[in-house]
Amino acid sequence: MTARRPGRRPGSADTRGEILVAARKEFAEKGFDKATVRGIARQASVDPALVHHYFDTKVGMFVEAMRLPINPETFLPTILEGPREEIGRRLVRMILTLFAEDASRQSALGLIRSVMTNEESVGVFREFMTNVLLYRVADELGVPRIRTELAFAQMFGVIVGRHILRLEPLASAEVDELVELLAPTIQRYLTG
Amino acid sequence: MTARRPGRRPGSADTRGEILVAARKEFAEKGFDKATVRGIARQASVDPALVHHYFDTKVGMFVEAMRLPINPETFLPTILEGPREEIGRRLVRMILTLFAEDASRQSALGLIRSVMTNEESVGVFREFMTNVLLYRVADELGVPRIRTELAFAQMFGVIVGRHILRLEPLASAEVDELVELLAPTIQRYLTG
Repeated sequence: MTARRPGRRPGSADTRGEILVAARKEFAEKGFDKATVRGIARQASVDPALVHHYFDTKVGMFVEAMRLPINPETFLPTILEGPREEIGRRLVRMILTLFAEDASRQSALGLIRSVMTNEESVGVFREFMTNVLLYRVADELGVPRIRTELAFAQMFGVIVGRHILRLEPLASAEVDELVELLAPTIQRYLTG
Repeated sequence: MTARRPGRRPGSADTRGEILVAARKEFAEKGFDKATVRGIARQASVDPALVHHYFDTKVGMFVEAMRLPINPETFLPTILEGPREEIGRRLVRMILTLFAEDASRQSALGLIRSVMTNEESVGVFREFMTNVLLYRVADELGVPRIRTELAFAQMFGVIVGRHILRLEPLASAEVDELVELLAPTIQRYLTG
């Protein structure tokens, strides 16, 4: 796991951080799908086994490298399991609650701002959002992909209106009130 | 109309442009509501009558100063007149069609990007969006203000997903298909 090879540095206090820096670079250059653990290890000058030691999956590494507030591998089961007729309520509540936490909100808003203004971030964000999240939900629910994108668009607009534009009364509204108003929209997109 | 006063410059080829520069500054400093034609004239070192000569209303001046793709004073009647039960369809089609035109889209996307990343733009954009557009529509339709903000959030997210993130199939979808999918959402928010 920590076997040394010539020219490869062993695990150190900040190896994990260095792997994340390398991962960010590799994801930006190659996109999510084409980036490989081997390539990231090469960028970081460490053994691929060391990358696997720190990060179980490429998705997990991407989540940390891009400072996503949530890992879709935890998010998806929470949304997809449970009654289908309440998927709208679950999804709206989960996203609004996530953005109510300072740390998650700060990192997510930073990502949103960078994606909106940086062509390189857009590409890797788009690929990840669609392949890892939106297309999977659509396929799992058996609905056209455009419907999960419209649900995403609704929630993206709500987050921007609430936390970046700070439109009132939206910015100060209680999560419960927003769930009542938004859940039927998301439900209709996701279950037709 | 073009009467000279000491220290005031008369209308010249680029007076209109200079008034817009001054307006942008005044709006950023004071916000939309508190900015005055008198203050803008002072910033531009011209007579207030000259400002009125070039711009009929403060809204019109704001629209040009902020390079908004559309004047709410034309937009609002188009949306509010006509059958109430088709307001969702009219609004969705109008916004998507607007963003299908290169010039409008470019200026609107520039504004969106600047608002997302610039605290000063946010304030003046928020005040204008709510007071001149969203609150007026809510009051006119007799629905709670948060509902017009959720409709705005849906369309804002669609525009970002389609033109900035360029999620497929959303980015390539026909306007007609999007009207079918989105109109019921907007209709529900606006007419309950």
